[in-house]
Amino acid sequence: MSYTVLGTGIVGRTMAAKLASLGHEVVVGTRDPGATLARTEPDGMGNPPFAHWHAEHDQVRLETFAEAAALGGTIVNATSGGQSIEVLLAAGVSNLSGKVLIDIANPLDFSHGMPPILDPVNTDSLGERIQRTFPDALVVKTLNTMNCAVMVDPARVPGEHTVFVSGDDTGAKKAVTELLGSFGWPQAAVVDLGGIVTARGVEMVLPLWLSLYGAFGHGDFNFHVQGGHPRG
Amino acid sequence: MSYTVLGTGIVGRTMAAKLASLGHEVVVGTRDPGATLARTEPDGMGNPPFAHWHAEHDQVRLETFAEAAALGGTIVNATSGGQSIEVLLAAGVSNLSGKVLIDIANPLDFSHGMPPILDPVNTDSLGERIQRTFPDALVVKTLNTMNCAVMVDPARVPGEHTVFVSGDDTGAKKAVTELLGSFGWPQAAVVDLGGIVTARGVEMVLPLWLSLYGAFGHGDFNFHVQGGHPRG
Repeated sequence: MSYTVLGTGIVGRTMAAKLASLGHEVVVGTRDPGATLARTEPDGMGNPPFAHWHAEHDQVRLETFAEAAALGGTIVNATSGGQSIEVLLAAGVSNLSGKVLIDIANPLDFSHGMPPILDPVNTDSLGERIQRTFPDALVVKTLNTMNCAVMVDPARVPGEHTVFVSGDDTGAKKAVTELLGSFGWPQAAVVDLGGIVTARGVEMVLPLWLSLYGAFGHGDFNFHVQGGHPRG
Repeated sequence: MSYTVLGTGIVGRTMAAKLASLGHEVVVGTRDPGATLARTEPDGMGNPPFAHWHAEHDQVRLETFAEAAALGGTIVNATSGGQSIEVLLAAGVSNLSGKVLIDIANPLDFSHGMPPILDPVNTDSLGERIQRTFPDALVVKTLNTMNCAVMVDPARVPGEHTVFVSGDDTGAKKAVTELLGSFGWPQAAVVDLGGIVTARGVEMVLPLWLSLYGAFGHGDFNFHVQGGHPRG
């Protein structure tokens, strides 16, 4: 299988490394590969420059958004939520058409200080906005309710816990559920919420997640839905 | 101890019945007690009229909002979120002053159809709005992230699960945590998120809760924060 991961931040790197470790062909997309590799300073979050990571993951190719999106059979949106639509447009409508597009981003807006706000929120969501903008992509919202380290290694958090999937295409959700299984998520941990409209709910969890992160001082936690019995 | 429960819907009745069963003096507040008792039709949610419930809980007094709020040492806001501020104003600023005000409401707006939206949301919350409007009340947001049957009987949901508390007054949160203990919530299940600003996060969980309710077809579930270690 081949995957395109859009975004070179810590979330994109974590996903790309996991996918590559599972034997998949992985291409990471960025605006300007030369500029991304030339950076020598840590990013605003204190993460080391991309080139350091890439030296240890040289089986992962780095290309422009459009070149990367053309290559992958499945697309992972791991960009900042506020930039996701712009990046996906740069990736190109035709390069996303007919493909599973896994949206793990959150539309957090830090420009007004802390706590960040969500935009869109309440009557819309990033997941829905992506599906509307790219009607021929098969958008599945998932994994956005946890730290990226937990996304690809659920055993970091002891006990049972939940990963949500939202999307309009049943086959795409099935493919994503299988991918999650390869990350270590048991089938019973995957809760199918319904259509992409339910992305609103999982995105709106972020303020609570951020409060818990503040209260605990670490991100190695996750939500578990206790007492739920998925339909089907 | 004496409690005033504002609201005669299923949430208010469930809270009032539990508090009375624990031996507390309980007064329920409503706009017009005569009108509330005179209703003979089920409400819009299919719940039996209040008088039926009251006949089986006649140790619970029914009074106007202001009379009820004057009597109780602790106030529980169990009204519809869209009406809460108006009801609390009718209860009277001086009747809330210096008291613990437990806000278990959600500001859901069903007027635009399903799914309901939250108002306020994102940059504000009902919990904060109540605290701003009644600066001398000790507002604690809690229990709003679950079905009312689970609020007062956590054993309905198997396994460990979480109840959040948010509020600016440490003593008030301690008192509420003790009350939760009397409902059957172990101390370890109570997660203190911080100040009342964190009410945003727990209110914004409601869209996800509603999706889960739709997916499961029942409300006997709850969120558990797996891997979290509260500070302190």
